[in-house]
Amino acid sequence: MDCAATTPVSKQVFDAMTPYFCENFGNANSLHSYGRDAAASLNTAREKIASLLGANSTEVYFTSGGVECLNWALKGIAHAKKDKGKHIITSAFEHHAHIKACKTLEEEGFEVTYLPVYEDGVVKSSDVEKAITEKTILISIMLANNEIGTIQPIEEISQIAKKHKIPLHTDAVQAVGTLDINVKNLGVDLMSISAHKFYGPKGIGVLFIRNGLKINKLIEGGFQERSMRGGTSNVAHAVGMAKALEDAIAGQEKNVAHIKKLSSYLNKRILAEIPHTTLVGHKTRRVPQINNFCFDFIEAESILFRLDMQGVCASSGSACASGSLEPSHVLMSLGIPIERAQGSMRFSINKNLSMKDIDQAVEIIKEVVADLREMSPLYPKDQTLFKEIKRNEKSV
Amino acid sequence: MDCAATTPVSKQVFDAMTPYFCENFGNANSLHSYGRDAAASLNTAREKIASLLGANSTEVYFTSGGVECLNWALKGIAHAKKDKGKHIITSAFEHHAHIKACKTLEEEGFEVTYLPVYEDGVVKSSDVEKAITEKTILISIMLANNEIGTIQPIEEISQIAKKHKIPLHTDAVQAVGTLDINVKNLGVDLMSISAHKFYGPKGIGVLFIRNGLKINKLIEGGFQERSMRGGTSNVAHAVGMAKALEDAIAGQEKNVAHIKKLSSYLNKRILAEIPHTTLVGHKTRRVPQINNFCFDFIEAESILFRLDMQGVCASSGSACASGSLEPSHVLMSLGIPIERAQGSMRFSINKNLSMKDIDQAVEIIKEVVADLREMSPLYPKDQTLFKEIKRNEKSV
Repeated sequence: MDCAATTPVSKQVFDAMTPYFCENFGNANSLHSYGRDAAASLNTAREKIASLLGANSTEVYFTSGGVECLNWALKGIAHAKKDKGKHIITSAFEHHAHIKACKTLEEEGFEVTYLPVYEDGVVKSSDVEKAITEKTILISIMLANNEIGTIQPIEEISQIAKKHKIPLHTDAVQAVGTLDINVKNLGVDLMSISAHKFYGPKGIGVLFIRNGLKINKLIEGGFQERSMRGGTSNVAHAVGMAKALEDAIAGQEKNVAHIKKLSSYLNKRILAEIPHTTLVGHKTRRVPQINNFCFDFIEAESILFRLDMQGVCASSGSACASGSLEPSHVLMSLGIPIERAQGSMRFSINKNLSMKDIDQAVEIIKEVVADLREMSPLYPKDQTLFKEIKRNEKSV
Repeated sequence: MDCAATTPVSKQVFDAMTPYFCENFGNANSLHSYGRDAAASLNTAREKIASLLGANSTEVYFTSGGVECLNWALKGIAHAKKDKGKHIITSAFEHHAHIKACKTLEEEGFEVTYLPVYEDGVVKSSDVEKAITEKTILISIMLANNEIGTIQPIEEISQIAKKHKIPLHTDAVQAVGTLDINVKNLGVDLMSISAHKFYGPKGIGVLFIRNGLKINKLIEGGFQERSMRGGTSNVAHAVGMAKALEDAIAGQEKNVAHIKKLSSYLNKRILAEIPHTTLVGHKTRRVPQINNFCFDFIEAESILFRLDMQGVCASSGSACASGSLEPSHVLMSLGIPIERAQGSMRFSINKNLSMKDIDQAVEIIKEVVADLREMSPLYPKDQTLFKEIKRNEKSV
């Protein structure tokens, strides 16, 4: 239950990639037949991805993954447009890497507005419009949040961005396979996606860059990626990513229906059967696969290890930020108190799970939470104390 | 005969990588068992590579390949040390991506000294010392040139760099498997290598960064790579790279002896049997696998396509720079006249070729060169004209 961290490469994707390791191994920039074959496969993959995204193939740039895409989009636009202005609008709960890149730009003299996401974890498009100044050079708001799954009003924001002629980037890494990621429908100028989140390989992503948009390079080199991103093309992974995207979109309707059923069953049972538990963020405006709960009085790391011992893989926040002792910036941005945020667990439901798996998981989660609470000095065993706590919360 | 452009993934490397796509697919940053297994495999790969390079495992940083390494080393050191000074010393014939990154740094206000490489394609260490100023913050000289194979005196340069307390980076991408790439023996502070040049997968490289060296990040993100390079770890490729490096170094003595024999036979026959042909760069101070010839009076692209049609894969310069109409900056830096440089072909000998392959290739090369010269308006059919040309060349 941690498909938001990563997914296995599907058998179909692996089979599609395999010939490009040992046999069709050419450097796509070589002019001889091995090179030309590699270039042809790379182009086919690019065209397939472009068509699935509603983009032109000249707008699809392969990178080493989502994080490189985010770095490139932010720094590339900021540096290319700095003479026009140095103001960037984003949200307070973008991906870790996105926030880090923004902080670096701030150190370089850029000004970044981090919009609030409120208790439900949704940016208000009216806030975007209010934040715009004549110095604004980029708006970057994620499509679906990676920790709590809430969906942002990108189409609305796109209207505003267009009106003010400001490029709009969206981090769609967690949206592939469950949301519409057609760049025309979304109305975005840049979009980041990463293959390993949808049963493709790790180490490859795509940055969509609308034709004509001025952007600086992040990784300079040869003539790869229309001279915009150097480095020998990873043809095997490009082919794998195209196949994974094709499968994700072809199976989307069916998978979404299935995952929705599992998630709503999971949510219903957990909220009904485990007291002092809240679902984080908007109740419905969410990608179906991500469910983030706060279990009061206990700590996520302990829950995680105990679940793992019983065969349930979950996550306390984003995998990219694990190793940090800080509470998740995403939960903080929703105004969740630290002590509650510390008991937050993300269960992200992959398409291969069954109702039986969810039933099993719920039983294990219930047991683990009860056990940990039993040991927790914070957990009041006396019902009157609960009432006390509730009163205090209200007065806060 | 184009192993300097890329190599196939070996069967052994592919087998080592395979389990990490569909089965052991965890995100190495996840805290549950799938994640911990991935992290353990990643660490084993990192430790193996560190030990093969004579480095500490905390000095091995995985990247998406050689070009990212070069960008990171150059921009990372330049930006981290800009308050100390803004002067960088390099050579005129570094890899395309390296030159590009230097040009960008020049636009940002850095000063870059491009040392001459002379007719034999070797940097003089005394030139390095002369170029040093109190503003010099980085010396970056490649170990073996990617187009002509000449080896640079890195150990000597290291002594000078150490004396002046200036960090030294070397691009060792073309050296793995044929030269000593132990960072202690070389005395370097940073070193770039790329797996697909030694029978490993595309899309992964390693930047060695000596512990304690201050360097800025290029791709910011989570806690991956000791918080220095964001992005979900490509565990499959890291494992593959470690296996490829292990095999390259284990087989080095045998492979070098074999490749040397093939290359010297190739050189001897080509120079003896094809008139008006020169071997580019130093005659002996070269990695054995790279042989670059100038065939006078004809153009590389025509040679390349004709060779390819007969089953010989070669290259006109670097694959990264193919697509350019400019003559190779490497050949230009050696002072080779444009008309001669335009007939330059690189034959890079992979370890799996046999003497019989070389014999076959030489016959094909002879035939192709003769055919093209027959059609070339530049090729003087009359012997007296040759003498005329030789006289003119001398007077030039």
